[in-house]
Amino acid sequence: MKEVTIGIDIGGTNSRVGLVDKQGNVLKSESISTSRYIDVEEYIGALDQLITTISGTGSGNFELKGIGIGAPNANYHRGTIENAPNLPWKGIIPFKEIFGKYRNLPIALTNDANAAAIGEKMFGVARNFENFVVLTLGTGLGSGIIINGEVLYGHTGFAGEMGHLTMVPGGRECGCGRQGCLETYVSATGLSRTAIELLAQKNGGSPLRKYRFDELTSKHVSDAAEQGDPIALEAFDKTAEMLAIAIVNTMAFASLEAVVLFGGMAGSGDLLMKPLKKWVDKYVLVFFRNTFKILYSTVKEDHAAILGASALAWKETYK
Amino acid sequence: MKEVTIGIDIGGTNSRVGLVDKQGNVLKSESISTSRYIDVEEYIGALDQLITTISGTGSGNFELKGIGIGAPNANYHRGTIENAPNLPWKGIIPFKEIFGKYRNLPIALTNDANAAAIGEKMFGVARNFENFVVLTLGTGLGSGIIINGEVLYGHTGFAGEMGHLTMVPGGRECGCGRQGCLETYVSATGLSRTAIELLAQKNGGSPLRKYRFDELTSKHVSDAAEQGDPIALEAFDKTAEMLAIAIVNTMAFASLEAVVLFGGMAGSGDLLMKPLKKWVDKYVLVFFRNTFKILYSTVKEDHAAILGASALAWKETYK
Repeated sequence: MKEVTIGIDIGGTNSRVGLVDKQGNVLKSESISTSRYIDVEEYIGALDQLITTISGTGSGNFELKGIGIGAPNANYHRGTIENAPNLPWKGIIPFKEIFGKYRNLPIALTNDANAAAIGEKMFGVARNFENFVVLTLGTGLGSGIIINGEVLYGHTGFAGEMGHLTMVPGGRECGCGRQGCLETYVSATGLSRTAIELLAQKNGGSPLRKYRFDELTSKHVSDAAEQGDPIALEAFDKTAEMLAIAIVNTMAFASLEAVVLFGGMAGSGDLLMKPLKKWVDKYVLVFFRNTFKILYSTVKEDHAAILGASALAWKETYK
Repeated sequence: MKEVTIGIDIGGTNSRVGLVDKQGNVLKSESISTSRYIDVEEYIGALDQLITTISGTGSGNFELKGIGIGAPNANYHRGTIENAPNLPWKGIIPFKEIFGKYRNLPIALTNDANAAAIGEKMFGVARNFENFVVLTLGTGLGSGIIINGEVLYGHTGFAGEMGHLTMVPGGRECGCGRQGCLETYVSATGLSRTAIELLAQKNGGSPLRKYRFDELTSKHVSDAAEQGDPIALEAFDKTAEMLAIAIVNTMAFASLEAVVLFGGMAGSGDLLMKPLKKWVDKYVLVFFRNTFKILYSTVKEDHAAILGASALAWKETYK
């Protein structure tokens, strides 16, 4: 029997369940709807059935060792999902406890970015690092911080909210109700906002001028930048500068070995990385210069969430 | 025989050596010059003799259990003092190794702010905390960060440089060669700089107008604030705002239980604390609200460095 863990990625619309071996191969995966389960017990029941289906109980092929779950607003310490705005279940959900009624296996949950960090350590570019951070650059910015080989959860269990570092007091409005958070500048959305700001500020033609505010995506900006559009290039430069400041501040605080960039914007290649390295060089404190690496994740994005959740399960099973 | 540890506080001008019991009583202490010892071996020889003198070897009163040293630019992992600009010894000094030739005891060194943090945990207001930071507000700003009960040293050994968080890109010039570092705003010097800036910006009388730039101290500012001078009060308010942003960002990153303020400015009482709490309330991310305390240190400042160094020694001896 092949030892496997179950990695579950809970998203607002759909959830994915995967069977992962110790080498990080996703052997099988399936999706179910999240949003149609108003009742969390029913949802977990459905997850449980799906696990039975994909692991082919009875066929004796797989030995399930544990279940790892990546979910927004998950609290690892308490095994709960707490007041997640994008999930159908309100309040504090004792997710691990409920799941435990179905499966007598090690079960652990953590938020998406922490799962990504554990995944990078077990299966990705961070295999040899004990101190690093994974920044997930998507619609927002998530972070999973590893200190001495362990996820930094902090006192509340909610450490690692780098997307909500206050970078510009009184700056851009953030979904969290505050202003000037890192993710309003450094994310796919942040990049578009910066491009729009530059369109307003500058004269000169740009292919970006033909998009409405709510049409303009980070993809448009990177396409324009690849064509050499100065406004798009400057939008990347400004995004990189803000990210550089967050990175050098992270070093001043925690002196990590590496920053791993993951998610849509991490596909921007040199468009982001080149100005990022320039700005990090400018801003870094002299005795942290060249003490850390900035890397793009090599985990495939469509499997990353399942792999991260599964890595958490492996970690729990053999801790 | 009473068990004691030796706490050594190495400053640029003088060094202090103290004998400390397990309850944090400084039983004896003495000073020697640092700056007159160009040769570090001679300096350590002199420290060793001083230890012999104050511990009264031969009298049998004290059993020395270990030696803890707080020094600028100390590297705990390597036992070195590295390129300390304010000490007479240049380059990388294998301090622990040299000291080991004189004393067959556990010896450890760390920087001043880390020693302060260990001291607060063992003898001060942080006794019940496992996750906190001590901010030492003096001429500059130092920080010692405790995560899961241990000092956060990071990959290089130099984590906890919060004084050099970049708060204002292109902002005030810092001694580190960069601009906009936290300590150029939040420190005794930072407070004076802010007051001067406000004097230039505003009309209206202020007792602070009678001082030259290089005369004006934080004491003048706090005296004027106590008299109700609006400019001095605003200087405290602005200092508190910048400190608040650094604190809420620390929570977003590491979710600590407490922030302990120590040093000259921590004597400012409500002048700093009242606006600080107001600004923290304004800037804090909703799910960290009321999850942490902001406290003033209760360790007496003249003994704090020795106590911190001694606490490090106790920690090493019984780890």
